[in-house]
Amino acid sequence: MNILITAGGTSEKIDEVRHLTNHATGSLGKEIANSLKNEAVNVYYVHGPQAVLPENDAIHFFPIHSVQDLYDTMKKLLTTISFDYVIHSMAVSDYELDTATNEALLSEQIAEKIISEEYKTKEELAQLIKQVLTDSHQSAQPAQKKISSKNDKLILVMKKAPKVISQIKTWQPSTHLIGFKLLVDVSEEELVSVAQDSIEKNKADYILANDLTHIKGDQHIGLFVSKQGIEQRFNTKKEIAQGMKQLILKN
Amino acid sequence: MNILITAGGTSEKIDEVRHLTNHATGSLGKEIANSLKNEAVNVYYVHGPQAVLPENDAIHFFPIHSVQDLYDTMKKLLTTISFDYVIHSMAVSDYELDTATNEALLSEQIAEKIISEEYKTKEELAQLIKQVLTDSHQSAQPAQKKISSKNDKLILVMKKAPKVISQIKTWQPSTHLIGFKLLVDVSEEELVSVAQDSIEKNKADYILANDLTHIKGDQHIGLFVSKQGIEQRFNTKKEIAQGMKQLILKN
Repeated sequence: MNILITAGGTSEKIDEVRHLTNHATGSLGKEIANSLKNEAVNVYYVHGPQAVLPENDAIHFFPIHSVQDLYDTMKKLLTTISFDYVIHSMAVSDYELDTATNEALLSEQIAEKIISEEYKTKEELAQLIKQVLTDSHQSAQPAQKKISSKNDKLILVMKKAPKVISQIKTWQPSTHLIGFKLLVDVSEEELVSVAQDSIEKNKADYILANDLTHIKGDQHIGLFVSKQGIEQRFNTKKEIAQGMKQLILKN
Repeated sequence: MNILITAGGTSEKIDEVRHLTNHATGSLGKEIANSLKNEAVNVYYVHGPQAVLPENDAIHFFPIHSVQDLYDTMKKLLTTISFDYVIHSMAVSDYELDTATNEALLSEQIAEKIISEEYKTKEELAQLIKQVLTDSHQSAQPAQKKISSKNDKLILVMKKAPKVISQIKTWQPSTHLIGFKLLVDVSEEELVSVAQDSIEKNKADYILANDLTHIKGDQHIGLFVSKQGIEQRFNTKKEIAQGMKQLILKN
């Protein structure tokens, strides 16, 4: 039996010294991998740069940095190896760098656009400005090795990163997908509703929905959500790992 | 003898799950602290969240996250304890978060400003836009627990963070300050010139100037620069640590 686990967080390069990181320790992924240690399971473990790792020589490790790295690695794995379960616990950035600019350069570009086009209403004007922010950034400034700190403002325009979770079932329709959803300080209804949207959208079988305000050390409240609603409630990382293990071995 | 070492990188919070981090392992700071292990030196060690740490029970550790954290911690230490040397090797972010916004909201704000003010030239128009980017961001959007990923673009407007290195001699004029300057792929002349500017501006005694393209594993080319020019050339972290140690103990 092959299981693919993702854990930790992604890290998007801003320049040679700066990164936008999604903070995640990877300890839940580690706990899940550890719980499978004595089972007849091949674990493939894709992890971010800062993730704590399970100690298990039998695990196949795949370190990644950016979302694009993750995308390429997952695509390769899922189109070459058959997995019974994909447990996608990694905190994946929604955005990656489009352009790094500054207040002077960006103002000039917007002014240039407004002067060269016609508009009648404030809405049309806003639309012109939005076009500059949305389209023309690619060529705004050449990629820099280390972004200069001379300007008052560093403006980071981030664009949507590829959505890995939505591709998993496309790459391998027969696998079972357990996704994770982390929200911050929301109601249980909202948590479940967002989890069910994700099940729908990403063809996930289950989502482990959790709220950052309910994660502290070993305490880790998680709702195991299916299309039908809450299947199980977990209170610790150990409980979550045991729950996953039971589900996987039942298969 | 008291020595204050800073090491690792700072991490600026964008929201509850995202951070802008300055990548630095802290291994040079660790090497310097380790070289002082058997000397009659009290080491105070201020370090970023991901830094590798020297193993030495006698060291006083001060973990920090953001630049503001670093500023507060350094101020407190330097105004209460007398240090013979401050070895400031930490990679400190030049910027901290001003506002997180998106293409729709920012366009509207700029359009609003342009409609409500008068301008004659393109330069005046650019100036108006710049005002929005520079001034009015504070109240653009309430602080968010987790920034929504609904918009096409996440626009992070970063403002200048407090400059810690420039305050060190203000807080404690009698200390000796060794600063660090990391550039990427520049000539030796530029490296030395930037280091000497920093000596001048920050009243540093020395700057260890290095270029990221010459740092790989244990290889770590560093120019030890004073007001007079290059004092010494180092090729490894060990050599840098030994050089610092000799300088400190000579005192």
